[in-house]
Amino acid sequence: MLLRGRPRTLGAAALLLLLLIGFFLFGGDPDYGRPRSQGAATFDGDPPADPRGHNRSDCIPPPPLPPKCELLQVAIVCAGHNSSRDVITLVKSLLFYRKNPLHLHLVTDAVARNILETLFHTWMVPAVQISFYNADELKPQVSWIPNKHYSGLYGLMKLVLPSALPPDLARVIVLDTDVTFASNIAELWALFAHFSDKQAIGLVENQSDWYLGNLWRNHRPWPALGRGFNTGVILLRLDRLRQAGWEHMWKLTATRELLTLPATSLADQDIFNAVIKEHPWLVQPLPCMWNVQLSDHTLAERCYSEASDLKVIHWNSPKKLRVKNKHVESFRNLYLTFLEYDGNLLRRELFGCPCPPPPGAEQLQQALAQLEEQDACFEFRQQQLTVHRVHITFLPHKPPPPQPHDVTLVAQLSMERLQMLEALCRHWPGPMSLALYLTDAEAQQFLRFVETSAVLSARQDVAYHVVYREGSLYPINQLRNVALAQALTPYVFLSDIDFLPAYSLYDYLRASIEQLELDGRRKAALVVPAFETLHYRFSFPSSKAELLTLLDAGSLYTFRYHEWPQGHAPTDYARWREAQAPYRVQWAADYEPYVVVPRDCPRYDPRFVGFGWNKVAHIIELDAQEYELLVLPEAFTIHLPHAPSLDITRFRSNPTYRDCVRALKDEFHQDLSRHYGAAALKYLTALQQPRGPA
Amino acid sequence: MLLRGRPRTLGAAALLLLLLIGFFLFGGDPDYGRPRSQGAATFDGDPPADPRGHNRSDCIPPPPLPPKCELLQVAIVCAGHNSSRDVITLVKSLLFYRKNPLHLHLVTDAVARNILETLFHTWMVPAVQISFYNADELKPQVSWIPNKHYSGLYGLMKLVLPSALPPDLARVIVLDTDVTFASNIAELWALFAHFSDKQAIGLVENQSDWYLGNLWRNHRPWPALGRGFNTGVILLRLDRLRQAGWEHMWKLTATRELLTLPATSLADQDIFNAVIKEHPWLVQPLPCMWNVQLSDHTLAERCYSEASDLKVIHWNSPKKLRVKNKHVESFRNLYLTFLEYDGNLLRRELFGCPCPPPPGAEQLQQALAQLEEQDACFEFRQQQLTVHRVHITFLPHKPPPPQPHDVTLVAQLSMERLQMLEALCRHWPGPMSLALYLTDAEAQQFLRFVETSAVLSARQDVAYHVVYREGSLYPINQLRNVALAQALTPYVFLSDIDFLPAYSLYDYLRASIEQLELDGRRKAALVVPAFETLHYRFSFPSSKAELLTLLDAGSLYTFRYHEWPQGHAPTDYARWREAQAPYRVQWAADYEPYVVVPRDCPRYDPRFVGFGWNKVAHIIELDAQEYELLVLPEAFTIHLPHAPSLDITRFRSNPTYRDCVRALKDEFHQDLSRHYGAAALKYLTALQQPRGPA
Repeated sequence: MLLRGRPRTLGAAALLLLLLIGFFLFGGDPDYGRPRSQGAATFDGDPPADPRGHNRSDCIPPPPLPPKCELLQVAIVCAGHNSSRDVITLVKSLLFYRKNPLHLHLVTDAVARNILETLFHTWMVPAVQISFYNADELKPQVSWIPNKHYSGLYGLMKLVLPSALPPDLARVIVLDTDVTFASNIAELWALFAHFSDKQAIGLVENQSDWYLGNLWRNHRPWPALGRGFNTGVILLRLDRLRQAGWEHMWKLTATRELLTLPATSLADQDIFNAVIKEHPWLVQPLPCMWNVQLSDHTLAERCYSEASDLKVIHWNSPKKLRVKNKHVESFRNLYLTFLEYDGNLLRRELFGCPCPPPPGAEQLQQALAQLEEQDACFEFRQQQLTVHRVHITFLPHKPPPPQPHDVTLVAQLSMERLQMLEALCRHWPGPMSLALYLTDAEAQQFLRFVETSAVLSARQDVAYHVVYREGSLYPINQLRNVALAQALTPYVFLSDIDFLPAYSLYDYLRASIEQLELDGRRKAALVVPAFETLHYRFSFPSSKAELLTLLDAGSLYTFRYHEWPQGHAPTDYARWREAQAPYRVQWAADYEPYVVVPRDCPRYDPRFVGFGWNKVAHIIELDAQEYELLVLPEAFTIHLPHAPSLDITRFRSNPTYRDCVRALKDEFHQDLSRHYGAAALKYLTALQQPRGPA
Repeated sequence: MLLRGRPRTLGAAALLLLLLIGFFLFGGDPDYGRPRSQGAATFDGDPPADPRGHNRSDCIPPPPLPPKCELLQVAIVCAGHNSSRDVITLVKSLLFYRKNPLHLHLVTDAVARNILETLFHTWMVPAVQISFYNADELKPQVSWIPNKHYSGLYGLMKLVLPSALPPDLARVIVLDTDVTFASNIAELWALFAHFSDKQAIGLVENQSDWYLGNLWRNHRPWPALGRGFNTGVILLRLDRLRQAGWEHMWKLTATRELLTLPATSLADQDIFNAVIKEHPWLVQPLPCMWNVQLSDHTLAERCYSEASDLKVIHWNSPKKLRVKNKHVESFRNLYLTFLEYDGNLLRRELFGCPCPPPPGAEQLQQALAQLEEQDACFEFRQQQLTVHRVHITFLPHKPPPPQPHDVTLVAQLSMERLQMLEALCRHWPGPMSLALYLTDAEAQQFLRFVETSAVLSARQDVAYHVVYREGSLYPINQLRNVALAQALTPYVFLSDIDFLPAYSLYDYLRASIEQLELDGRRKAALVVPAFETLHYRFSFPSSKAELLTLLDAGSLYTFRYHEWPQGHAPTDYARWREAQAPYRVQWAADYEPYVVVPRDCPRYDPRFVGFGWNKVAHIIELDAQEYELLVLPEAFTIHLPHAPSLDITRFRSNPTYRDCVRALKDEFHQDLSRHYGAAALKYLTALQQPRGPA
C-alpha cells in the first residue's frame, strides 16, 4: 500500500521508510522466527535475547501488503471425504479475511476432486480461480518413501509441487488442510518480500521439541536445524527451487537419510528439515504467529501470549480439536466460527478488482435482475433461480459394487426429519442417496448425529449430499435432483423421507427388476403402493397380509385417503389387494405414486419449490416419455405422521402461496405443450376439470 | 506496536519512522477525509488532487496500534427492543475483530437496559466491562430541541455524552446502533493519535450531498462545512470538550440556528455540524472507510472501490438493509455474518492480557474443571452447568396492564415447534411468556416467521425470550425458568408447546382464580386436565361436552394413556367427567399435571436436561411446599401429535441416557430429603416401588 499513488511526491520518503523497515527486520530476532541452532546463517547479526522475554516479532513492522488486486496463489493437497470437509473450512477462513483475488491449486484424489469441483462450481465465489491436479499421477514420485505419518502418501506430495504446478507459477503459499486463518492471507504473501536473493522456502519454526530428539529415550528424529521447521504453512519460491534443482536435492537427502532411518515420521516435514539442515540458505524463517501449532505438548503459548495477534492456527495434533491445551477452547471457537459459517455469505465481490465472474454468475445475475420485486410470486421466482452450494458425499461413502438390478433409495430431508434416518436404515438395507437441506451449522450437527448413531455409522452405502440452505422456500425438486444425480446403481426408488418401505422391499425390487427384464428392454416405472398411519406409535406390518389386516382394522389408510385421494387413486388399491402379478395402470390427473425407475429417468422440474405439485409434474413427465406404470403386487411403503411442515402450513393459510403454485403449474403445462405437442393435450384437458386443492 | 520492546536499540529508528509517518499523513488529502469547503483549516498544505483519482487515504500508513492490553472505551445510545437487537449485532462485529479489552458505556432506556443487562450477564465475554447510564434522566437536556429524525430524542443524546460519562473518562468512540465493524476497533482508536492539540472530535465526511443543500428545491439543511460530517462513528476527546465548554457551545449554536430553522432533520448530526462550522478547529477528519455510509444516494462507492479495505459499514438509510445500492448484497453479507454469528464463540480469552474474569466465570470454570470426561453422564453434567446466553423480550412486547387474577401461559420451544405458535395464539388470547431455544441464525428465522405471520405480529402481549443453544441436551427446565421469571402477571399457566388449551381456558382460569380466592389466601395449584389426539388432523372440541364425546368415540385419549398412565392418573379423569366444582387430589409418584400457580412458585430443577422427569420433579417440589392440587372441572388442554423429539429418541434407544436420568433422579431425592427432612420420605418410598420407564 505504501508504494501506491503519487509516486513522484512520495517516492523518496517511501524509499527511506523501506530502508528503515529493513533495519527493523534484519536487526530483529523473532523467538520462533528462526532456529536456535548455530548452523543457521540467515541473519548477519544475532542480538542478545530480550531479558523480559518479549516476542520481538511484534516489533517488526509488517511489510507492505501486496497491491489491492494482485492475484495470490495457494496450493493444498487433499484426499478423501474427511479431508475435503477440512479444506472447505480452511478455505472459508481464508475467504473471510482475504481482500485479494485467489488462485487455489488443489492436488486431489478422485474423491476429493469430485466433491470440491461440485462445491466450488456451485459456490460461485467471485475472484477465486480453482485448478485441480491429479494426486494419483504424482504418487509414484513419493511412494518409494517409507512413511509413518497419519497423512500417508498425500503428506509427502508437498515435495513435488515445484514440478507438479505450472512451470510459470513462481510463488505459492502451501497450506495443510488442518490450518485455520485468523487474518488476511495477503499479510502472509507480503512476507515473500523478506526473502533474500537465494531463499526459496519460508517456514515457521517448530513449536515442539520433537526435532531436538530428547522427547524420550531412543527417540531418533530426522536431522533438523535446532527445533526444525513446521511445514503446515509454507511460502515457496517455486522458480528458485526449480532453478536450484530441488527435485534432485530432496531425493538425494531423503535417500541418504533413509539408509540409517527406517521411515519418515512426519512425512514431508522430515525431508524438508533434512534438506534445510544441509542447505540452510534455502530457508526464510517466518514469524511464529503464522503457524501457531496446537499439538499436545506445544510451546506455542510463548508465541500467542506475547503476540497481539494470531494469524494462522494449526491443528497439528492427530487428536485435532480434542487436543489437550489450556487455551484450546478459545482456539476451538475460532475454528468453529468457520466450520459453522454460512459459506453463501462469502460470495462477496472484491470492490474495484476487475475479475472474471465465476462461470454462470453473469447469466444468474441477469436473470435475477429481471425479476420484479412487486411480483406476488417474487419469492418463488427467486428461489427457483437460486444456485445452492452443494457438498456431495459429505461423509465417507463406499459406492456399492456394480450389480445389474441394484436399486438406490433416493430422498431428501431437512434437519427436522433427521430422526427418520435410523428407522430408514433398518427398513432399507440397500444403497441410498439422500440430499440434506442444511445450514453450515446444521451440517455439523448432522455429522455429530451420524457419529453418535451406531446404526448410521455402520452404513457406508448411504451417501449424504448437503445442499446449503438459501431462501425461504424449500427447493424440493432441486434437492431430489441432487440425490438422483448421485445415485450410482442402474435403478432408483424415488421415495420421500417420511416413508418407511416394507422390510422386504429392497430384495423384492431387485428380484422384480430382474423378472420383468427391465434392463433396457422395457421402459417402465414400478409403482410402490403407499399407505399411511395416523398414529405416531405403530407396529410396522411384516407382510402384505398383515398390512391388509391393519387396513381393514382402520389402523392404516391408503396414503392421503382423507385429503388428496386422487394422488394415489390410479394405483387401484382394490386391485392391488388381490393382485398376484404386476399390473399396468394408466396415468390420471394429479397422480403421484412412489416409483422405481432407471437412473437416467427425467429429472424433477426445479421450478416447483415449497409445497405443491412437485411430484405430480414428474409423473406427468414420465408418462409423456411413455414410461409404463406397473404396480408391484407385494411392494408397499408407509407414511409416518409428523407435524405439518412450515411450507404446507403456508400453503394452507396463504392464498398468494396457492396462487403462485397455480401459476407454476400453468407454466409447466405451457412448457409441456411446447415439448410434446399434441401428446401433451391430455394433461391440459385433465387440468381443466376442477379437482382437489393443488 | 512499533514502540514496544527493546526501546533502546530501536528508539532512534522508531522516532525517524514516526517522523516519516507524519510526513505521509499530514501531506495527504484523503478524498473523504475532510470537507471540501474552504472554511476548513485542519491541514496546512493542500497538494493538488491526484489526476488518476486514487484515494490517497490508502497511502497513509496506519498509526501504530494501541498497546496490546490497552482498554478501549466505546459509548452507544440504545432504546427499545429493536435497537437492542441492533446493538447486539454491532457488538458481535466489534468483539469478533477486537484484540483489546473493551469498556462499553451504554446509554439506555429501561427496556434496553433490562435486555442488555441480562444478555451481557449471561454472555460472559472475557475482557469486556459494561456500564449503564439512564437515558431517561438525560432526556430533559435535549428534549427542548425539535427533531424530525427517526432516531427521535435518543439520537440527540450523543450531544450530552461529555457530561453524562464519568468525568475521568478522557476518550471514547461513539457508535450508532446501525454500524457494523469489518476490522479491529483498535485501528480506529489509534486515530486519536492524529488529533492536533486542540482537536476534540474525529468524524468521517458525509457521503451524500445532503448538507450541500442542492438535493431538492427549498431544501434548507443545517449549516455545515461542505458536505458536512456523519456522526455514526465519532472519536471524542471528552476531556477537551469539557475544557472547551462543549455544553455551552452546542446549546448556543442550536438555540441560534433554531431561530431560523424549524427543527433538526438529522438529530445530533445537524448540531454537531453547525458547531463545527463555527469552530472548525474542533474536528479531525477521519478516513472514509471508517464510516462507509449506505444511504439511498450514497457516494460511498468512491470510498470503498478504491480503498483496499472496509473498516466500518453504516446502514444510515431509514430503509436499513433494504436500501437500494448496486453493491448492497455484499455489504448485507457482512452484516448477516454477525447477525447470524454464534455469539457463544466470542467468549474467547485475550491471551496475555490480565483482565478480571466476568462475574461468575471463575466459579463456572472451576465447576467445569471438576467434571470427569470419563463419567458416562459427563454430557449431562456439562449441560447442567452451561450458562446460556439469554436475550429476553427479543421482539417488541407490551406488558399486560396489571390485573389481580391475570394468568400468563408459560412454555418453551425450539425451531421445530414454531408452527405451533399461530394455533396457540388463537387458543390463548391472554399474555404468554415463551422461551425459545435457538441458534443466533435461527433467531433471525424466527424473527422473519413472526413478521410474516399476521396472527403473530398482531400480538404484543406475547413475550419471546431467546435462550441461545449450547450443548447437545435440551435444557428444558432452564428454559422453563427463563420463561417463568419473565411472566409479569400474578399467575402462570405452566404448559408445554405441543398442547392447545380449550378456547375458553384463559377466561375460565381468571374466573376460577377469583372464585377460589387464591390471591394470597390459599396456596394452590390448579390442575388443567390433559388429553391427546393421535390424529394430526383433528377438529378441536369447543366444550367439555364435545371433548367427552370425542373421548368416548376413541378420537381423543387422556394424555399418555398408552405409554405413561401414571403421569396423569391422579387427576382422576372419571371424577372429572362428572365434576361440577373444583376437587382436590393427592400427589402420587410420577404425577406431572399441567398447573396454574402463582408467579412466585418454586422454580424447575435445572439439573433435568434432555428428556425425562423434568416436570415430575417440579410437581414434587409443589407438593413438598404444600400446594393443594385442585382439578378444575371445565378446564382442559389437548396434546397434538408430532414426530418424536431427538431427545426422546435417544432416551428410548440409549441405556446410558436412561441411567443418567435415573442418577439425576436419585440426586434430586437426596436434595429433597436434605431440604424437607422426614416430609420428603413419602417421595422416596414412592420411588422404591418399581413403575414406568423413567
